[in-house]
Amino acid sequence: MDKESFRRHGYQFIDWLADYFEEVEKYPVRSTLKPGEVKDALPGGPPLQGESMDIIFDDFQKIIVPGITHWQHPGWFAYFPANNSPASVLAELLTAGIGAQCMIWQTSPAATELEEVVMRWLAQMIGLPESMSGVIQDTASTATLCALLTAREKATSYEANRTGLRRPLCVYTSEEGHSSIDKDVKIAGYGTDYLRHIPTDRNFAMIPSELEKAIEKDRAQGLEPACVIGTIGTTSSTAVDPLSEIGSICRRHGLFFHVDAAYGGTAALLEENKDLLAGAEDFDSFVFNPHKWMLTNFDCSAYFVKDEEALTRTFEIHPEYLKTGLDAEVKNYRDWGIQLGRRFRALKLWFVIRSYGVEGLRDLVREHLRLAGLFKKLVDEDERFEVMAPVRFSLVCFRYKKPGASEQELARLNAALLEKINRSGRVFLTHTSLKGSYTIRMAIGQRTTTEKHVRQAWDLISKSAAEL
Amino acid sequence: MDKESFRRHGYQFIDWLADYFEEVEKYPVRSTLKPGEVKDALPGGPPLQGESMDIIFDDFQKIIVPGITHWQHPGWFAYFPANNSPASVLAELLTAGIGAQCMIWQTSPAATELEEVVMRWLAQMIGLPESMSGVIQDTASTATLCALLTAREKATSYEANRTGLRRPLCVYTSEEGHSSIDKDVKIAGYGTDYLRHIPTDRNFAMIPSELEKAIEKDRAQGLEPACVIGTIGTTSSTAVDPLSEIGSICRRHGLFFHVDAAYGGTAALLEENKDLLAGAEDFDSFVFNPHKWMLTNFDCSAYFVKDEEALTRTFEIHPEYLKTGLDAEVKNYRDWGIQLGRRFRALKLWFVIRSYGVEGLRDLVREHLRLAGLFKKLVDEDERFEVMAPVRFSLVCFRYKKPGASEQELARLNAALLEKINRSGRVFLTHTSLKGSYTIRMAIGQRTTTEKHVRQAWDLISKSAAEL
Repeated sequence: MDKESFRRHGYQFIDWLADYFEEVEKYPVRSTLKPGEVKDALPGGPPLQGESMDIIFDDFQKIIVPGITHWQHPGWFAYFPANNSPASVLAELLTAGIGAQCMIWQTSPAATELEEVVMRWLAQMIGLPESMSGVIQDTASTATLCALLTAREKATSYEANRTGLRRPLCVYTSEEGHSSIDKDVKIAGYGTDYLRHIPTDRNFAMIPSELEKAIEKDRAQGLEPACVIGTIGTTSSTAVDPLSEIGSICRRHGLFFHVDAAYGGTAALLEENKDLLAGAEDFDSFVFNPHKWMLTNFDCSAYFVKDEEALTRTFEIHPEYLKTGLDAEVKNYRDWGIQLGRRFRALKLWFVIRSYGVEGLRDLVREHLRLAGLFKKLVDEDERFEVMAPVRFSLVCFRYKKPGASEQELARLNAALLEKINRSGRVFLTHTSLKGSYTIRMAIGQRTTTEKHVRQAWDLISKSAAEL
Repeated sequence: MDKESFRRHGYQFIDWLADYFEEVEKYPVRSTLKPGEVKDALPGGPPLQGESMDIIFDDFQKIIVPGITHWQHPGWFAYFPANNSPASVLAELLTAGIGAQCMIWQTSPAATELEEVVMRWLAQMIGLPESMSGVIQDTASTATLCALLTAREKATSYEANRTGLRRPLCVYTSEEGHSSIDKDVKIAGYGTDYLRHIPTDRNFAMIPSELEKAIEKDRAQGLEPACVIGTIGTTSSTAVDPLSEIGSICRRHGLFFHVDAAYGGTAALLEENKDLLAGAEDFDSFVFNPHKWMLTNFDCSAYFVKDEEALTRTFEIHPEYLKTGLDAEVKNYRDWGIQLGRRFRALKLWFVIRSYGVEGLRDLVREHLRLAGLFKKLVDEDERFEVMAPVRFSLVCFRYKKPGASEQELARLNAALLEKINRSGRVFLTHTSLKGSYTIRMAIGQRTTTEKHVRQAWDLISKSAAEL
């Protein structure tokens, strides 16, 4: 593709995206395609000769776009948001175009140093101790894996890296902890037999006394407690574990304390939420995802650690072909996580923070919190429905109720309701289970979601329930 | 940012990139900044109020660009290439703009199904058995970790996920295996005590009889061999391990066989290189990186497995909040690797393959191989230099020699030569060590590198050597 073609198609794609951002509402939020429809529309093998970008882009619009589930739709209320923004998308364009692989300082000093700087900014923005060191990971799954590996190495005096993990080390999270913790416990070689899911209270937050009991029970049985993972904003209901108390327990028992704030961390941008990070001086590590609720397109997961050396000692490698004369003076982020190769992800974060400013980001979060409060009120006021969990952030857990119905019947009814509203194409919500009860989740966090969209969603839910 | 601003800045960034692609030669390949220069140019905290994109873009050009090491420069001969292409960059723009998080089929059916299709295309293109299933990982580090975890679970009948790895399992790679193998062996809980670096022959390829000896020795000592990792194109010298023989050994001993072709896999696009994948029916898994030498911007690592179920059984999680009614009918790629969240990476691969066509990609690879042959000839013809390893692909390992000089003196001289040529700003080469000898690596693989650039690089090296 020559320069003029690149320019022409670049403009064309920018135009298409400009329209897309504006008109995304015209698409059904959740793709309506059936399994196999995209595959069937594509040839079984690659073309031998190159094709024109006009044809490729045409196929993109005809074949791919109908198979997209539109995460940037204002009717997106599913899972958690993964909101992006024009500033972030434009930065990603530059990152892709420059195409630097930022594994070490030398392979792009600006990437390493900008990452250091924006991570320090982020720590300031949410009120983490400034002594914590930051690194961008791809996802919270990966960040939590880094935490579990660091905890494993600290507990074994960095021996497990050499000898394998030959004795059981125990990990603790609440029964509402994210599924990636189970997965990471397997990967890091702890084994799920040694993962304790601590009971939660009626607000779905970890009960500290139960944690301490579990730790003591394991100790009494000759097992070795190693790591506790607390959560700010659980996936099912955005519950917040009592981190100060948990931190004290960790300190008392000498355990590594990781905090998963993948979704909830963004809320700490607000002054009125500073209590979220109370006890942060006891966090050994902390993760939150600007790619969820802070306008930075996926992937960008902000991971902070108290003890930088413990992290790098867990991961460091020193092959001759990666050595440079400056290694003693600079950070080489290859030693801060799993992957060697790294994209220049700090750029989009820098663009987002500067483009919106801290106040701009706060405004967005405050508005989402307000909309969640409004939605909760609408549910509360309709006696056919019930709210299933405290609304701490911008997620409302609710369900349709029916006097005398069994849990099984309620699950069937609510699943039918959910499928009905999702099939409308105007909204997309997902479900979870809270202490055995089927629950619909209304997660508000799209950049373009306004009160109108939230009220429309409620009208749709309300009318659909009447037709059940 | 409103629609018109997005359009205006989008055009502006496209224009800048169009110029960048054309004029990247005007920059020094390796950034000339000193540690701290970028950091010092940035404020210590984030702005409270949003700033205009004009100011941000201006800072990008003034502060960031001087700190970029230009991987897309035609004088890029360092490490391995990470070449991108206009088609790939434009696809990444769409991916970022649509902002879909493609963790499961439902969250964008087109992303899952296009990934299935392009991975099948890729298998055809390089001649892997079509029965292998493909998934895009971020890096070969991650893909190899997936292989080691699958091997661990197969060897323990999927018990290690539950109980932890309580007995030693042994892993084998050559002494030239990539450093990510050491790192992954730690992460997966094997421990480096159980990683065997098998000796290599004078071509730096694994010696199969030494592998078998090591396996038998471990068995004799009551240890359990589990996994062998062969390489197509080692990082230091692009050596190719004798995979057919290694595969037979793996089959005979019941070991998991992973092949790391991160760089070299692309060469299998050529008919004349089909022998590279001889014995592929014995590969349990295979990784190569379209983001290295196949014009797809980082990150895009193609991972293929023989036994799809073994992979998903290693990683599967089933939390209620991720269940859909279609899970039995579709692929959910969240269970094919470490991370839950996934970018729509198949799109850029599709754009690249269609835009260039298989023949277009072959032409590029053939030209790079020709240029490496030319460079080798230039080195061979100059008696002051010596070629240090067979030139199998597009990497030439060489050094300046000096009669009677010790290895130490040669290392010093060649390091000085390397620094001298890199400081010119016109090329960037890196070094390695081959059986204890300091070696300069000339890795040819940039999209825009032509014979002129290779000859210029040689002239620079030759003249600089004269001034040593």
